[in-house]
Amino acid sequence: MPTAAVADARRRPETRAAILGRAVDLASAEGLEGLTIGRLAAELDMSKSGLFRHFGSKEELQLATVEEASRRFVATVVEPALATDEGEPRLRALCDGYVDHLEQQVFSGGCFWAATQAEFDDRPGPVRDAIAGAVAAWTTELARQARLAGVEDAEQLAFELVSIATGANNRYRLFGDPGAFALARTAFEERLP
Amino acid sequence: MPTAAVADARRRPETRAAILGRAVDLASAEGLEGLTIGRLAAELDMSKSGLFRHFGSKEELQLATVEEASRRFVATVVEPALATDEGEPRLRALCDGYVDHLEQQVFSGGCFWAATQAEFDDRPGPVRDAIAGAVAAWTTELARQARLAGVEDAEQLAFELVSIATGANNRYRLFGDPGAFALARTAFEERLP
Repeated sequence: MPTAAVADARRRPETRAAILGRAVDLASAEGLEGLTIGRLAAELDMSKSGLFRHFGSKEELQLATVEEASRRFVATVVEPALATDEGEPRLRALCDGYVDHLEQQVFSGGCFWAATQAEFDDRPGPVRDAIAGAVAAWTTELARQARLAGVEDAEQLAFELVSIATGANNRYRLFGDPGAFALARTAFEERLP
Repeated sequence: MPTAAVADARRRPETRAAILGRAVDLASAEGLEGLTIGRLAAELDMSKSGLFRHFGSKEELQLATVEEASRRFVATVVEPALATDEGEPRLRALCDGYVDHLEQQVFSGGCFWAATQAEFDDRPGPVRDAIAGAVAAWTTELARQARLAGVEDAEQLAFELVSIATGANNRYRLFGDPGAFALARTAFEERLP
């Protein structure tokens, strides 16, 4: 294998990760529909053909971006909470991580899920299914831990937690009110077992 | 004035209302950015030049659509509640109307505010300001009535009510779950004084 090709192959995974990291940030701010290969190429100072080698179509890029956003959410919110026991401690750790994560990521464009959900809820297809699948998995995990914590109406609690966290993101994004996350923490505190 | 011009002038207000009614429905489903004059003209089977006579630019059309969505919200949710006393009865009437209205309008594309807020929160300008102004006015009115009802942390309650109602709309739109509105009513019942 020629040295250049080896270097290229080595660089590829890192490049793909860097591309998708930027794609998640852009989509969090502007939505997935604005995330064209041309737009992303300009942002990354890459050629469009270079990007097409990674992602053959806009839909493929959108799906890979949803997958990267999920991976990032799991790494930031879910994995650190796995050190706690299931049930009440895990539920608290997940909720703390959830609000902290939202508060931190507003600086890079806001919540990916809030931005893309409203955009794709009326566009049936694989991208919508991927977003719905990720949101459902998170809501289900909150409900599961609430049930293990002895919460009677765990579905109700999970719905309220997700609504309130999303509401805090929306409030910060629309009004620039940094107090939005304190409102979410107070609401969580009142509801958690 | 020639007869045709008189008829045209008479028809104009109705036509404008009909155009904006369709524009609100379209924007509720697909957002305001997709609401081009060409798209709307095709939907209404009108000429683009006919639409341009009503709205000189895409931004003017977007602003008029936000105004019509506000007018519709006030007529459907706020005005019927004005028959009740301020404070606890008014707060309940507003909240009942709020969830009923969301439940009904999901059939014509979902909540206009949920759809357009995520879209415009990163686009400074008059359209974003108009959306933020309407959302702020509604949140402020809920907080004012909560305060009159003797709620201690009225801002907190208003934030939670708006988050949960929006969360119900999102859940219905993403998962087609009609139980979303029952979840919102249960959450409201637990929270209202």
